Amino acid sequence: MVIIIGGGFGGLQAAKFLGKYPETFDVVVFDRRNYHLFQPLLYQVATAGLSPADIATPIRAALSQYKNISVRMEEIKKIDAQNKTVSSDQALFKYDYLIAACGAGHSYFGKDHWEEFAPGLKTLEMATEIRRRILCAFEAAEKEALEENQQKYLNFIVVGGGPTGVEMAGAIAEISRQTMNRDFRRLNPEKTRIFLVEAGARILNSFHPSLSQSAETDLKSLGVEVLTNTLVTDINAEGAKLKNQNEEKFVVAQTIVWAAGVKPSPLNATFGTSLDKGGRLIVNQDLSVAHFSHTFAVGDQVHFELSPQKVLPGLAPIAIQQGRRAAENILRLQQGKKTKNFTYLDKGQMATIGRKLAVMEFHGFKARGLFAWLAWMFVHIYYLIGFKSRTLVMIQWAWSYMTFARGARLITKKDWHENS
Amino acid sequence: MVIIIGGGFGGLQAAKFLGKYPETFDVVVFDRRNYHLFQPLLYQVATAGLSPADIATPIRAALSQYKNISVRMEEIKKIDAQNKTVSSDQALFKYDYLIAACGAGHSYFGKDHWEEFAPGLKTLEMATEIRRRILCAFEAAEKEALEENQQKYLNFIVVGGGPTGVEMAGAIAEISRQTMNRDFRRLNPEKTRIFLVEAGARILNSFHPSLSQSAETDLKSLGVEVLTNTLVTDINAEGAKLKNQNEEKFVVAQTIVWAAGVKPSPLNATFGTSLDKGGRLIVNQDLSVAHFSHTFAVGDQVHFELSPQKVLPGLAPIAIQQGRRAAENILRLQQGKKTKNFTYLDKGQMATIGRKLAVMEFHGFKARGLFAWLAWMFVHIYYLIGFKSRTLVMIQWAWSYMTFARGARLITKKDWHENS
Repeated sequence: MVIIIGGGFGGLQAAKFLGKYPETFDVVVFDRRNYHLFQPLLYQVATAGLSPADIATPIRAALSQYKNISVRMEEIKKIDAQNKTVSSDQALFKYDYLIAACGAGHSYFGKDHWEEFAPGLKTLEMATEIRRRILCAFEAAEKEALEENQQKYLNFIVVGGGPTGVEMAGAIAEISRQTMNRDFRRLNPEKTRIFLVEAGARILNSFHPSLSQSAETDLKSLGVEVLTNTLVTDINAEGAKLKNQNEEKFVVAQTIVWAAGVKPSPLNATFGTSLDKGGRLIVNQDLSVAHFSHTFAVGDQVHFELSPQKVLPGLAPIAIQQGRRAAENILRLQQGKKTKNFTYLDKGQMATIGRKLAVMEFHGFKARGLFAWLAWMFVHIYYLIGFKSRTLVMIQWAWSYMTFARGARLITKKDWHENS
Repeated sequence: MVIIIGGGFGGLQAAKFLGKYPETFDVVVFDRRNYHLFQPLLYQVATAGLSPADIATPIRAALSQYKNISVRMEEIKKIDAQNKTVSSDQALFKYDYLIAACGAGHSYFGKDHWEEFAPGLKTLEMATEIRRRILCAFEAAEKEALEENQQKYLNFIVVGGGPTGVEMAGAIAEISRQTMNRDFRRLNPEKTRIFLVEAGARILNSFHPSLSQSAETDLKSLGVEVLTNTLVTDINAEGAKLKNQNEEKFVVAQTIVWAAGVKPSPLNATFGTSLDKGGRLIVNQDLSVAHFSHTFAVGDQVHFELSPQKVLPGLAPIAIQQGRRAAENILRLQQGKKTKNFTYLDKGQMATIGRKLAVMEFHGFKARGLFAWLAWMFVHIYYLIGFKSRTLVMIQWAWSYMTFARGARLITKKDWHENS
């Protein structure tokens, strides 16, 4: 019995590999969700460009062709690698091989009470909550009788200048400048202010500095105020306190989005082996965990050293490649062979800022603007189809995205009861 | 100033009419939601066939071309037709003309505590809650270690044999028989039982008896157990008690859907004029309310007597026609003309049961089976495009529907917080 925990990029890839050996393996995939999420496009849900179902597919459906795989919607709470068991609140399961692909959540750096005022962007529920907040802010501004009171609704703060933060800030700017412009009567889109707050010296710091600069210029052209070297020192219901070397000031804002720290799955702690200071599980070169040769871990939850000082970041292509290698190593062990070390095939990186605005780099090649944006579109559509296998969704999505139609501008409530 | 309360079929139609007279009218549309909902397809959201955004469009977007119309997302709590004002919790608004198009919610016939166990199908939130329950039931059954304990998850009860109930029961049957069949390993689709409970002598009682019979036969062919002359006498967390002339028995079921009683908007009570025994506002032949010649009401919330004994039901085509007539009458009053009575252009009625299964009637013409289903598809797609103006959504939808791909099978949580 092979157990895979998590139906994200890493887990799904591993399952598909093992699904090809029905004679050799029985596989169970555990996930507390019933769907695989195409996280790179989650910001599109948060900004009303796509519907949740456009970027999610049931794990069962993705794996239904493999008759040796079953899927359980159940949260694993503990891993006991010594005794080769995993357990949920209801039951304990024995495994011969394990692949932990549990991903990561958000870290508020010890300030967990900020979450209420600044939701992160890790799940569909969070994305629809952010969407609700953004859309409600415009509605509230439109209703506000006094123009001077509108500003708190028209200020948006995005914390974190990585790809997600850049994409969010750019998308909010586009909504306010274009989509919303024609639908509201009392809003002056010029009054919308979007602050992208980054603690480091530049945004997109995993990219070449010239691309960080290019992204910053593009964001500014969309009206985003990029605040680098700026720390968030407090967040409450009224806004956020921002501090740079010169001053500390409070910015009023109803809508704050958290795109900063990442916190690996709490399951890491149950291994009883070494974690890095970010809480990621340190894995061996073949992706096995410590001295447990039958237990593997992949993706955002792990710390994999490509070379001394070079730790792989949490990116979908890396999770996919690791998932495949872990599954392959399980097959090798089963065949009595030695495991193979993980080698990373660099797929480059890209981030989109807005329509016709993106940056990308690939093995030293750098691009920006329309070309990078088209490449971004192509790559995301390609992978999205790969996992949804629904060409029409792809067409619809590309079309909506290109025409700026934000088709999913729904403010849904948290509670379904009639009079809530 | 013309105030329209409600952005449903009636209100939107009225607004579009008045939007053509920017010189004459300033219009404000109030709605507590930011979107117009295509309610006839809500059951498709509840059964994971469509996404919420596929059947909803922002009211602002639908009306953005009319510069004399503004939209406020705000719930009106009181209408004072005597003084020509409406008020929300925050403010009071004066009107010259009013169109109340507030719709209806669900009635549990005094048993409001049943709602928790048997959500109705009136809002997107309710539809996604029902979807969550249906999908979770299959997940729970798959996980259940003891086969004899699976049954409560595989029993589904739909209360109410009108079009919505019939559509829900048929769609659940199709999910269990077809879509789910290939994705689960431990479920025997034959064990799924769907009970459609109707208090009257036949389902679809607004249709010709031969079509009721046809629909019942079709439902049975899909595996639905149609229980006519059967009352629901209790609903709790374990299931529902059903009573017919012979016996009263308790059916265990985790998933119960309410598609029975309708309760018009509570705003009806604030007019201080006559309501019928169902709580609907009795309107004059020109759709004005009592002796308030500048105050109109349309759609599901009103009681309109086509002729003595013949009261119009709550259907989208009727709300649309009434909305238009009420708006026209406002224009006539403004021009110093007499109002015109409402005359109903019968658009017939239709209900779908499943793939290639539907019933329809139109001025005495009756159809069933493939022809009726194609007609149903055509009519719904036609109206959906009319209001979404997005051809690609239409193609996607028709395609998904025809291929049985249920693309929106997401179990989302009620709470967005990470560790909820």
